[in-house]
Amino acid sequence: MPERIGRYTVVLNNRPTVQGHAAVVGKREGEGPLGRYFDAVFEDTTMGKKTWEQAESALQKEALTRALNRAGLAASEINHLFCGDLLNQCTASAFGLREFGIPMYGQYGACSTMAQTLAMASVFVDSGAADLCAAVTSSHFCAAERQFRLPLEYGGQRPPSAQWTATASGAAIVGMGGSGVKIAAVCGGRMMDMGITDANNMGAAMAPAAADTLLHFWQDTNSAPEDYDLVVTGDLSQVGSDLLQQLLGREGVTLGSRHADCGLLLYDRKRQDVHSGGSGCGCSAAVLCGYLLGKLERREMKSILFVATGALMSPTTSQQGESIPGIAHLLHLVAE
Amino acid sequence: MPERIGRYTVVLNNRPTVQGHAAVVGKREGEGPLGRYFDAVFEDTTMGKKTWEQAESALQKEALTRALNRAGLAASEINHLFCGDLLNQCTASAFGLREFGIPMYGQYGACSTMAQTLAMASVFVDSGAADLCAAVTSSHFCAAERQFRLPLEYGGQRPPSAQWTATASGAAIVGMGGSGVKIAAVCGGRMMDMGITDANNMGAAMAPAAADTLLHFWQDTNSAPEDYDLVVTGDLSQVGSDLLQQLLGREGVTLGSRHADCGLLLYDRKRQDVHSGGSGCGCSAAVLCGYLLGKLERREMKSILFVATGALMSPTTSQQGESIPGIAHLLHLVAE
Repeated sequence: MPERIGRYTVVLNNRPTVQGHAAVVGKREGEGPLGRYFDAVFEDTTMGKKTWEQAESALQKEALTRALNRAGLAASEINHLFCGDLLNQCTASAFGLREFGIPMYGQYGACSTMAQTLAMASVFVDSGAADLCAAVTSSHFCAAERQFRLPLEYGGQRPPSAQWTATASGAAIVGMGGSGVKIAAVCGGRMMDMGITDANNMGAAMAPAAADTLLHFWQDTNSAPEDYDLVVTGDLSQVGSDLLQQLLGREGVTLGSRHADCGLLLYDRKRQDVHSGGSGCGCSAAVLCGYLLGKLERREMKSILFVATGALMSPTTSQQGESIPGIAHLLHLVAE
Repeated sequence: MPERIGRYTVVLNNRPTVQGHAAVVGKREGEGPLGRYFDAVFEDTTMGKKTWEQAESALQKEALTRALNRAGLAASEINHLFCGDLLNQCTASAFGLREFGIPMYGQYGACSTMAQTLAMASVFVDSGAADLCAAVTSSHFCAAERQFRLPLEYGGQRPPSAQWTATASGAAIVGMGGSGVKIAAVCGGRMMDMGITDANNMGAAMAPAAADTLLHFWQDTNSAPEDYDLVVTGDLSQVGSDLLQQLLGREGVTLGSRHADCGLLLYDRKRQDVHSGGSGCGCSAAVLCGYLLGKLERREMKSILFVATGALMSPTTSQQGESIPGIAHLLHLVAE
């Protein structure tokens, strides 16, 4: 049974299990430090499709298919599908997953969507509203660039604070029982807007939200960073990670080396030209579903906080001079 | 406690209550048959803002503020906010509601979003994951036209099957107890794609999803149309409503006059130039939060099925030749 603790945190007393998970990525992500952890690396990021948008849909289909296989389940056994992406009207999810025939609730949390879909899935399973749920998200560099920034053909320069949208998809199946990673609690974030207007500096827009959600969770649960093996944000990258440490430092909290960020884990910034690091829904999805869940399953870590972050803007709001609200949703994941 | 019945339906055994609700609309909606039921009619649909997108955000802010007031609650008492809209990256919700400071999970179900946000809110409350949740959505004719179709200045012709995007927002507060309307069950829909490619014929794209969800719900709950005072879809309008009756007829189900559609209730098609009827997230949101909930509260009806429908396309997918998947989410609402 889910139980509300404080204003923000929901403790999942039945501790639903991640019964299957998969991450599929593009060439660049496969060449990064985590390459060997992914279920599939696609050298051709068109996925054999005519458009980048269709390629992103194909990534989601691959991720969900592999996660279902790893869980030993058929699509017809899943009660609810929670999915989302960065494309307009969440179409990577709709067109990638329509053929599975699973009742679907589209989710939008920008790059925080993997945490959000898993939060929904685990509350539904923990409460008895569902026996099995799936959580899926994705991003694709080429689809995101032309939608949010400039057509690739323009060859625009990117400032050092810019992040590289990951070409990747992650999927997880949540149910009761089994030997997988348990979801112990979720903490939903509120929008934080510190007036950042630079769409090439998402890390700065999202760091205050990550700090806000973490501080609320520690307060609600009367815990501290030391109680967890790792606090992994996604995807603040370098600029945002530095800011997060500063913001928490002001509150007397030192994260230090206990902190990692999916945007920094996914790429080797010295070797790969990704500027501040990775971003996109697929970034934290692939790092979670490909790397972190496996580390927990192998008991290399026992208890982590996964805090996916999102920037809730659109090109239209940026052109209209709006600032960029950030959001961060947290999952407490444990290996029992 | 939520309880899964069949594959699709979740019975909410604690029957959460709609403790407050509000609908705010634009001039045309105020001039329609339901005008007197709305909490506010804004003659100036710019809402005094510089852009249509900001005007839509202002509608959401108005709706949530009024729903909170009617529930006698402060924003700080709400645990989770479920919200969404049709604009790219759900920005009407993000920018309209960021100042409320409520932990937020963005939802995307196209025009089915009011049912989806209320489904999430009621599962969270019924399960104990939250004491109080808010559900909000909106649409704005002018913002939707330039995003999905053509700039208003172009003055494009619309075929008779086209629908008119409502300028409207609805908000509802869900909690346990109180004298309001109870949410007895929710039924999530799967995507149905019958190959419709005409973005000016959303009713045809969505009708199969409405039929699919209704048939699953009646099967899961072993009930029939006669067990409900009204089956109200939103927003199939005339073309989609006729198709729904045909599709259900093939399965031996006759809805007849027990059926109503939010897209047909909101406007007077003879007097108002809305072609097939209304659409947009705000259409079913305003009809539910302004009209239907009130009829239930006054005991003019005792038990209805509210089936909001959505078309999960974007201009990009239409330009790329994709068909339009439809979806429909159902709420069983009762006056006790």
